[in-house]
Amino acid sequence: MKTYLDCYPCFLRQALAAARLAEASEPQQKVILDRVLDLLKHIDLASTPPEIGDQVHRLVRQEIESGDPYRAVKEISTRRALALYPRLKALLAEADDPLEMAARLSIAGNIIDFGPVQKYDLWDTVERVLAQPFSVDDRAAFRESLDRVGKGAGTAPLLYLADNAGETVFDRLLIETLPVPVVYVVKGGPVLNDATREDAKAAGLDRVATIVDNGTNAMGTVLNRCSDDFRHLYNGAKMVIAKGQANYETLSDEGSKVFFLLQVKCPVIARDAGVPVGSIILKQG
Amino acid sequence: MKTYLDCYPCFLRQALAAARLAEASEPQQKVILDRVLDLLKHIDLASTPPEIGDQVHRLVRQEIESGDPYRAVKEISTRRALALYPRLKALLAEADDPLEMAARLSIAGNIIDFGPVQKYDLWDTVERVLAQPFSVDDRAAFRESLDRVGKGAGTAPLLYLADNAGETVFDRLLIETLPVPVVYVVKGGPVLNDATREDAKAAGLDRVATIVDNGTNAMGTVLNRCSDDFRHLYNGAKMVIAKGQANYETLSDEGSKVFFLLQVKCPVIARDAGVPVGSIILKQG
Repeated sequence: MKTYLDCYPCFLRQALAAARLAEASEPQQKVILDRVLDLLKHIDLASTPPEIGDQVHRLVRQEIESGDPYRAVKEISTRRALALYPRLKALLAEADDPLEMAARLSIAGNIIDFGPVQKYDLWDTVERVLAQPFSVDDRAAFRESLDRVGKGAGTAPLLYLADNAGETVFDRLLIETLPVPVVYVVKGGPVLNDATREDAKAAGLDRVATIVDNGTNAMGTVLNRCSDDFRHLYNGAKMVIAKGQANYETLSDEGSKVFFLLQVKCPVIARDAGVPVGSIILKQG
Repeated sequence: MKTYLDCYPCFLRQALAAARLAEASEPQQKVILDRVLDLLKHIDLASTPPEIGDQVHRLVRQEIESGDPYRAVKEISTRRALALYPRLKALLAEADDPLEMAARLSIAGNIIDFGPVQKYDLWDTVERVLAQPFSVDDRAAFRESLDRVGKGAGTAPLLYLADNAGETVFDRLLIETLPVPVVYVVKGGPVLNDATREDAKAAGLDRVATIVDNGTNAMGTVLNRCSDDFRHLYNGAKMVIAKGQANYETLSDEGSKVFFLLQVKCPVIARDAGVPVGSIILKQG
């Protein structure tokens, strides 16, 4: 997915939010915005938004000399999500269709995102997503694909591409419900509030999946920036679950083995997918 | 009121919205955004947001070679507001306190604003504002000031600084309720969807007030850019009603004869005024 002019204001907003989260001084914030203004003058609109967002967040990290401005926020997100885990597990235990329920919960968790969204109520989001119709609905293909992978189990695991810290807890519930072994893929280094290995372990993902990192701190999954090991794994996978907007933006042209589970949180993606902001999507690539 | 870093994304968003409203091509939109990026690198943060916004909108008008990209939008806004005029007039006729009702309606009309707000429902806004408590409430001082001006009627009229086209119709209802003669002040030329003389006349303001323009197309009321005639009028006025955010931003330090009537539509003004976004304000300067 290409970058739209509508993304410009959003990049500035995100840079400012990241700078403030890292407690950058007002003059530092100004320097950061000035650098983002320069950067935006020279971007290639054929790049995906996460590729530009990446440069923006790298610039912020450089300027405030922090490896991970979102560290504290990520820990809080994980703790809050873990506090809901027993209630979510109880919902699953009572569900007529646990797979559907778990997929919805995983999508609900996608609200934990410090890029496009400023504020959210986690439990309200769960209740909304459980009741909401899918705007893109490839649930049948998703089940078929899971069945096929289940039959060939052992030879090629299901890859699950993580999105944000805290959302990881919701991913764990889906993984606990999936009938096949899962490799849970996190970022190779900090970017925005994306989950790294540390964040995944804090959410207990190491108990239910094999955690690997993709070898890069690029947002989404930019295959040519990932490690050879990850690309090998990706190319061999028969099914990939890709969470969140950035994975959608970077993998939307990658074929039918990828299933995108996300909430549509920005108007640019809404336009690209042809659905309203606030939609929930389970889409086959 | 100074410009905050939070205004940067908003300036870009407004430039893009204005360009699209004028049906600028995609490459033209890109040129405009690139020019705004340059402009933002060199702004003085001590300027008020409308002073910067002014430069942004001037740049858009230059680039698309349109004197008034908001012409059609302003006409539609006025028509829609006029269509409500009989219903609003009926509300006033039934009101226990017509002055309070008219002040609230005038504030409700302030939702018609193509700067900070994207979408709104006019009648929903009327109902909300009629029921909503004031977040800043100088109604008593407002009435006292009106009484004083009433007693000295004829010597110095009340100045009413207009904001947007369409909102003009709601201003007309307040002016029809005020017990004193009013000079209704519009912009000297087009900027954003601000009311000019033409817009005021289309809303029937010429029937209830003397219309003058302030001699500039600056947003808000930037006194040192207004005409000598207007400044003379302003300095002689005993009471000024100033509508909307831009007038608040540019006149907030201009003393106690100014009464601001507005809805708070952006987080920056909310922070400056110490109230939440969505607040309604009747504030003595």
